[in-house]
Amino acid sequence: MLKQKRIRDYHVQVGEMGTGPRNMITDVEGVTVGHVTLSDGDVQTGVTAVLPHQGNLFQEKVIASSHVINGFGKTMGTIQLNELGTIETPIVLTNTLSVGTAAEALIEEMLDQNPEIGRTTGTVNPIVGECNDMFLNDIRKRAVQKEHVIEALRNTTVDVKEGSVGSGRGMLCYGLKGGFGTASRVMELEHGTYTIGVLVVANFGNLADLTINSKKVGRTLVERLSNHEDEKDKGSIMIVVATDLPVSERQLNRILKRTVTGLARTGSIVSNGSGDVVIGFSTATRIPHEKPASPLTVQTIHEEDMDSAFRAVGEATEEAVLNVLATAEHVTGRDGNERPAFKDLIEEFDIELV
Amino acid sequence: MLKQKRIRDYHVQVGEMGTGPRNMITDVEGVTVGHVTLSDGDVQTGVTAVLPHQGNLFQEKVIASSHVINGFGKTMGTIQLNELGTIETPIVLTNTLSVGTAAEALIEEMLDQNPEIGRTTGTVNPIVGECNDMFLNDIRKRAVQKEHVIEALRNTTVDVKEGSVGSGRGMLCYGLKGGFGTASRVMELEHGTYTIGVLVVANFGNLADLTINSKKVGRTLVERLSNHEDEKDKGSIMIVVATDLPVSERQLNRILKRTVTGLARTGSIVSNGSGDVVIGFSTATRIPHEKPASPLTVQTIHEEDMDSAFRAVGEATEEAVLNVLATAEHVTGRDGNERPAFKDLIEEFDIELV
Amino acid sequence: MLKQKRIRDYHVQVGEMGTGPRNMITDVEGVTVGHVTLSDGDVQTGVTAVLPHQGNLFQEKVIASSHVINGFGKTMGTIQLNELGTIETPIVLTNTLSVGTAAEALIEEMLDQNPEIGRTTGTVNPIVGECNDMFLNDIRKRAVQKEHVIEALRNTTVDVKEGSVGSGRGMLCYGLKGGFGTASRVMELEHGTYTIGVLVVANFGNLADLTINSKKVGRTLVERLSNHEDEKDKGSIMIVVATDLPVSERQLNRILKRTVTGLARTGSIVSNGSGDVVIGFSTATRIPHEKPASPLTVQTIHEEDMDSAFRAVGEATEEAVLNVLATAEHVTGRDGNERPAFKDLIEEFDIELV
Amino acid sequence: MLKQKRIRDYHVQVGEMGTGPRNMITDVEGVTVGHVTLSDGDVQTGVTAVLPHQGNLFQEKVIASSHVINGFGKTMGTIQLNELGTIETPIVLTNTLSVGTAAEALIEEMLDQNPEIGRTTGTVNPIVGECNDMFLNDIRKRAVQKEHVIEALRNTTVDVKEGSVGSGRGMLCYGLKGGFGTASRVMELEHGTYTIGVLVVANFGNLADLTINSKKVGRTLVERLSNHEDEKDKGSIMIVVATDLPVSERQLNRILKRTVTGLARTGSIVSNGSGDVVIGFSTATRIPHEKPASPLTVQTIHEEDMDSAFRAVGEATEEAVLNVLATAEHVTGRDGNERPAFKDLIEEFDIELV
Repeated sequence: MLKQKRIRDYHVQVGEMGTGPRNMITDVEGVTVGHVTLSDGDVQTGVTAVLPHQGNLFQEKVIASSHVINGFGKTMGTIQLNELGTIETPIVLTNTLSVGTAAEALIEEMLDQNPEIGRTTGTVNPIVGECNDMFLNDIRKRAVQKEHVIEALRNTTVDVKEGSVGSGRGMLCYGLKGGFGTASRVMELEHGTYTIGVLVVANFGNLADLTINSKKVGRTLVERLSNHEDEKDKGSIMIVVATDLPVSERQLNRILKRTVTGLARTGSIVSNGSGDVVIGFSTATRIPHEKPASPLTVQTIHEEDMDSAFRAVGEATEEAVLNVLATAEHVTGRDGNERPAFKDLIEEFDIELV
Repeated sequence: MLKQKRIRDYHVQVGEMGTGPRNMITDVEGVTVGHVTLSDGDVQTGVTAVLPHQGNLFQEKVIASSHVINGFGKTMGTIQLNELGTIETPIVLTNTLSVGTAAEALIEEMLDQNPEIGRTTGTVNPIVGECNDMFLNDIRKRAVQKEHVIEALRNTTVDVKEGSVGSGRGMLCYGLKGGFGTASRVMELEHGTYTIGVLVVANFGNLADLTINSKKVGRTLVERLSNHEDEKDKGSIMIVVATDLPVSERQLNRILKRTVTGLARTGSIVSNGSGDVVIGFSTATRIPHEKPASPLTVQTIHEEDMDSAFRAVGEATEEAVLNVLATAEHVTGRDGNERPAFKDLIEEFDIELV
Repeated sequence: MLKQKRIRDYHVQVGEMGTGPRNMITDVEGVTVGHVTLSDGDVQTGVTAVLPHQGNLFQEKVIASSHVINGFGKTMGTIQLNELGTIETPIVLTNTLSVGTAAEALIEEMLDQNPEIGRTTGTVNPIVGECNDMFLNDIRKRAVQKEHVIEALRNTTVDVKEGSVGSGRGMLCYGLKGGFGTASRVMELEHGTYTIGVLVVANFGNLADLTINSKKVGRTLVERLSNHEDEKDKGSIMIVVATDLPVSERQLNRILKRTVTGLARTGSIVSNGSGDVVIGFSTATRIPHEKPASPLTVQTIHEEDMDSAFRAVGEATEEAVLNVLATAEHVTGRDGNERPAFKDLIEEFDIELV
Repeated sequence: MLKQKRIRDYHVQVGEMGTGPRNMITDVEGVTVGHVTLSDGDVQTGVTAVLPHQGNLFQEKVIASSHVINGFGKTMGTIQLNELGTIETPIVLTNTLSVGTAAEALIEEMLDQNPEIGRTTGTVNPIVGECNDMFLNDIRKRAVQKEHVIEALRNTTVDVKEGSVGSGRGMLCYGLKGGFGTASRVMELEHGTYTIGVLVVANFGNLADLTINSKKVGRTLVERLSNHEDEKDKGSIMIVVATDLPVSERQLNRILKRTVTGLARTGSIVSNGSGDVVIGFSTATRIPHEKPASPLTVQTIHEEDMDSAFRAVGEATEEAVLNVLATAEHVTGRDGNERPAFKDLIEEFDIELV
């Protein structure tokens, strides 16, 4: 894989905290991500799968929480996730009208791995998130098939491609080409070093609002792009947060709520038509499906240590969105629709980011 | 259709309020319900569709809300429903592992009816609820196909069959055969007469807890059924509430929360494994998809009038659950599994309900 | 203290689980309760204080959660309680218009005990709940003074008086004299024996709805009391749940939500004007105010063990409400207002409860 | 009143929308604000009162909602506010340990104006918000008396003083002197012109994070102030949002949630110790206390028009925080504690803000 040029390669440094070795969600040990990209004329869409760990997730669940920044979205699985505080399947991200297909595929995969589901134990709660890629993708075709989802689930890796790939293929962000991005931050606490990783499928925002590390680049671009017209934001952002920090579901939820600070710093007003949903998990504690004889032991940080996590998740979210812009490639899609790629504009107009 | 023997036919009268003419959710004008029942050996499952009105729901949405009594469930679509306060598709109920298929079918139907979705307007938010019928149904087979869902959507009626039909086909309730049931209540306010209708897919509870209009019938049955063994409740109850009462989403939500009083009076402890989810809508106000030039006008009742609605929804929920028991027929399903039908036991043991 | 006749002394046995030795919230080790009762003509009100443990609560907080069944109430302190998942003061209950005074007194007491508050550490979050006793008590007089609150805080005990005492002095319940009541349940899990205790200040309901262990005693009483007229419910119920069960805040919250099943079984429809608020805590884990060097260790039960807790809290809530009725004595209050005491009616009309 | 130098007087223009004539919350017709400032040695605190309209608020309530950004706070009254969707008293803001006193005073004032409270109608729900001013103010003294609160309630005006006044007297913001600030925005919709006004008591943040209209002024200041040491944020921000936009409680709540975008743009990470609470109301519809014979009619905007409100509230919140900094005067308080005033630093170090 050719190394992609990310936002730091433009000398933009978001925040003050250090990053993990990859500056990706996969810096959280055990986490892997897989993309399947569909690109064929009017079909510009895809699937992204996130594995919280490499074992049997149904048997060994991870502590989880979710948070709705703005609920104009169709994410599936959060009712049970919030009630029980665990995730028991990988997380699949795709386009809005393919949530049902993704759920079916995820269920098939889980049934294959767990013959006791629906027999000696109950059912399984698939987690599927989405954004609406209808501008570049003929979403009515529902091109995503179960096999695409299963392929994404089975081909995850720690070296994650960003930009116009996977579920990010057809997305727009700040009126430019959007897509998939990720970043991470490392926290030093008295009792250890921990990582918070974030991935986003970014598909929201108006160009005029785009702010890069406090520089109002969007306004400059609007001026340069004489023909640019911002449309009503019908986007969304899906955010997945992973951490190895020992936290309770309540603490994790508090962390997830801070992703909005990163979004806002890139210029988001969290618009009406944008389904902005955050799903997060901690790998620090595994919750067994089968009840053990003794109580479970959960490690949690003291509340006073939360500020590091709050700062980390805000910074990583902000940088993940900027990485989307930095890496997204130009795509021509449905009916010849297109939006410029940020990286092409930066070059074309010779815009300084720092 | 042969008239089914309902709980009132056993001289059980729940509560003090009057019922609508059918004592069904379809007493709320415009509401219709359709079932498709799959019954073939190990396959004992089905689909139920609920139409809030007979027009184009995407174009003319209804005010809606949802409430999670216990979130061990996979209901889809409530994030957007709660954010926007509207429902824009029919509600489909089915078994747990068929939520994805149901969503896909619902989307297809909506795309057919609304060619502008994914083109000149955004996407659509399908509402799908579920219970786990794995005891009687081979849920791993995922027998529900898209055509079943579409058939249910297209064949709705005001004369609704109850018991072991539609999505209720494979359900259990209080350790007996469960399924689908409905009831309604009529409220007289100063400014008009209004109806609250409830339907349930009842799939929860332990026999010993069953209480019929304050009579502890469950304990009697446990004694008579020498071989009865209550299992861990892995059930659920889906509740749909319809009304023509002019209410805001907040008021509607308050009404939905009171369904639990009816459940509790039938003996429910709202157990861990039971996904108890309520979705409700009011037909009094339609919210247009397209923005009109002037503000919308919403009629709402004064808060002091809520008590009638609270009493009504509790009574109707209680009676809907009892109607499930009264009407559910014996079903032999997966691996020869079966649970007695309440109505058979009442007869066999000559049990008085009043 | 003369032993009070409680609901079990009428041979009413609620539910199937065993009780703690006192059948009171104080069966949870460390928990104590104190009342101050004000009874003087038009002033019929009081204060109840609950101590989760006997140490310094600010320094050693307990895991806590709260749940609003119906929010027509003025309970103070739940925002922080829910955010941080802990209680750091005793819980004070009083009449609606005295919440401010109770908060002030609670703050004074906490400042006395913790000289570092407002100096080297932050502030403190007082927890105060309330019901409206305006029918029997001249609530506009605001007779509760800070010294009453402090007296209640300093004179707590495990042998708790019930009925028309403390914060329950002026309350009504099901159109009869209401007040304070408590009950407990014991749970056997594989890894230990645990207790759930409940206390209520019961001030809600219409007589016709009163149900005692599935017997519709309210309807009988309405018939006997030829002059009875149910008024609009402007009541409330405050519920405090204590347990030594090792649970997370999320799990505790799930337990609190089940109190409504007990309420509903006594006949509650959770009416509009009733502020029904639940505050709960677990004494199993103490959370230190000062951050320790290592992560905290929290024991939690497996989710499969929740059903026992759900059943326990429902039963204890139901019995606590019935204990209110069984013990409440007749009170003549503001403007000569009065409501019959349940225990007097039972005797007068010779009503059988079983 | 001498005109105060606000952030716009430094040529900083936040956002793109126009302001109301005063650029204050009082641009929303009917809204007035009153301060009482206590400044005497170790006592540096105060009270701010907000009147949603000039009539009898208990008799004519306004549609309201609240939102907790971070719940490390003691705001009182939001349970009922959210359940019923209305505010029925003025909003009082003060220091953390004076919430009880403020509630008492507010109740007294309401009892005076409404003799039927506690007699022929129920009680009243006081709304009190707070921040912790312990650094500059001897909060343990609880210097705020009921008469201060009543004075603030009775002396409200449309010409509101900002900075180190009222409840903002002892507050800190971004490690500098904080306090009270306000701003407004005007929205043009097809059916009318509407105003959104915001006021804040700002008491949060670390200097290094301070960002002024995308300029990282905080970092510059940290460098210049060689002796500056950021402390653990034990702050808070109280935000009050007023509008004449016709909205439902649900829509209003969506608007309140967007205040965080403005906060984040000034540099907030929404830290653990900061109680960040938003209370909002719309004056467009009055809800009568007494039930009328007919249903209420509520005007609401179409959801598509929400984006203007989202942008407006974010901009106004951002500017209100910056107005705090621009106007706050240096205060020496408890134990000689002090923090520099932003406006003094700007001058001293000759820092350009644009």
